[in-house]
Amino acid sequence: MLLVVDLVGTFVFAVEGATAGIEANLDLLGLMVLAFATALGGGIVRDLLIGAVPPGSIRDWRYPGAAFLGAAVVFCLSQFVSQISPWVIIIFDAAGLGLFAVAGAAKALDFGIHPFIAVLMGGVTGVGGGTIRDILLARIPTVLRADVYATAALAGAAVLVLGLRLKMNPRFVTVLGAVVCFVLRVVSVWRHWNLPRLLQH
Amino acid sequence: MLLVVDLVGTFVFAVEGATAGIEANLDLLGLMVLAFATALGGGIVRDLLIGAVPPGSIRDWRYPGAAFLGAAVVFCLSQFVSQISPWVIIIFDAAGLGLFAVAGAAKALDFGIHPFIAVLMGGVTGVGGGTIRDILLARIPTVLRADVYATAALAGAAVLVLGLRLKMNPRFVTVLGAVVCFVLRVVSVWRHWNLPRLLQH
Amino acid sequence: MLLVVDLVGTFVFAVEGATAGIEANLDLLGLMVLAFATALGGGIVRDLLIGAVPPGSIRDWRYPGAAFLGAAVVFCLSQFVSQISPWVIIIFDAAGLGLFAVAGAAKALDFGIHPFIAVLMGGVTGVGGGTIRDILLARIPTVLRADVYATAALAGAAVLVLGLRLKMNPRFVTVLGAVVCFVLRVVSVWRHWNLPRLLQH
Repeated sequence: MLLVVDLVGTFVFAVEGATAGIEANLDLLGLMVLAFATALGGGIVRDLLIGAVPPGSIRDWRYPGAAFLGAAVVFCLSQFVSQISPWVIIIFDAAGLGLFAVAGAAKALDFGIHPFIAVLMGGVTGVGGGTIRDILLARIPTVLRADVYATAALAGAAVLVLGLRLKMNPRFVTVLGAVVCFVLRVVSVWRHWNLPRLLQH
Repeated sequence: MLLVVDLVGTFVFAVEGATAGIEANLDLLGLMVLAFATALGGGIVRDLLIGAVPPGSIRDWRYPGAAFLGAAVVFCLSQFVSQISPWVIIIFDAAGLGLFAVAGAAKALDFGIHPFIAVLMGGVTGVGGGTIRDILLARIPTVLRADVYATAALAGAAVLVLGLRLKMNPRFVTVLGAVVCFVLRVVSVWRHWNLPRLLQH
Repeated sequence: MLLVVDLVGTFVFAVEGATAGIEANLDLLGLMVLAFATALGGGIVRDLLIGAVPPGSIRDWRYPGAAFLGAAVVFCLSQFVSQISPWVIIIFDAAGLGLFAVAGAAKALDFGIHPFIAVLMGGVTGVGGGTIRDILLARIPTVLRADVYATAALAGAAVLVLGLRLKMNPRFVTVLGAVVCFVLRVVSVWRHWNLPRLLQH
């Protein structure tokens, strides 16, 4: 069950990565690389940092498989994919973000990482892939400049970590953390929320 | 013997990395960094991913030594290096690519990585260094947009992995994989082959 | 004592990273990411390369804490920070660079890395964070193109490694290495020293 949810999240992120590759006019292999990096990059960085080597997605071929399937779908059905409503993408993406954030924080705790840093690892899991995708496309990662995106991931991870510290039911706080991240992300897009920034003098 | 071949491949990739550094108007240290990243970056990423830490090129000073020698040659003999025929560079580069791809896939198998992912690791070993070089130069990695380059590396790695699964002679499939990668790369440049890509609507 | 010095160096580098984030018009979270990457990225890369996982700054929450404190100070006191004399920043930065370079080389030696590569690891520790910051800002790392910066870090690390090989007092060579790096860096800015580079033909 958890594996299925995780693979669906990987697939969704891969579709987004490959779509960005089409916009950048990359070839089929470029789409596959971007799909892989976007879907699995965050988890790989987290695993390297917490000492879980080889990373999960290098251990289990189904993760790269799900990522490449996402790239293949975008390549074969690009006409169809480009007509999907942005809100569908935002909702699936927010669901994947919430899932990755709580899964990342939980795995970090399992490896004995300090709770404060486990929250950061949840954030890295959620936004790391998109950051690597933007680096490969030679642009400033969108997560650094816009929207409540990484913040939602950190909030979801924080809910999980705090809940576990307070001895709440693990299954409940996992779902709660993912839902908090999801709702915060979707509402922030809907209401055009942004983090404070300084005006340049 | 294998070590010598490996160091020669490192040297060739380092020369290419340092040459890109001259085009970007970097100083001597910049050339050394680019030579190191281009020649050893792919193998280092592969080693981190498969759990072979410290990576081979951090364990053995001769690898960085070969990379820096490549940078020094480019710096001292730049007038000469810039007059080398592009075909000489393409042929040496294709040989290095084939070597790195099969060596990378074989090392991943040695570390118990699934065959499908071992092929990917062969690709990472072959093209990872060039990708890091392009990231350092703030441009979209050429491997994502052009030519049959990563594809040749993946094909060579796949030949090795398949051959080993079919219980063929390891030495034979190693050479065969490298040759397949080399020929595919050289012919694709000669015949202007490219991977399919979608036109943007 | 050593920890305090290390945390001060982290704080200084974080302030510089966050300042670069303000120039790039990032939001508060972007500043925190840049502060983290600039202050801790070099040490994290070194730790991954020498096999010290999880890296020190993932193990000990005070390092990310110092980095985020630097970001918060820049965000809250930006008017004040922007008025600090460039020379103050250069001097603090050079001190941090010397500290990171000798600490990085010493840690690599502790993990049984070859002395030649330990010097490189000192350089990576010193300049890795700034390089990641520049990659995130989609620009060619300044360390590749300008000034005696990485060179100073390598020189400081080399003094430490050589001194230890010559059985000199460890505490003395640590201080000496940091001072050599610091002086070389400050004097090179003052005298406008640069590394040789080739004119493009």
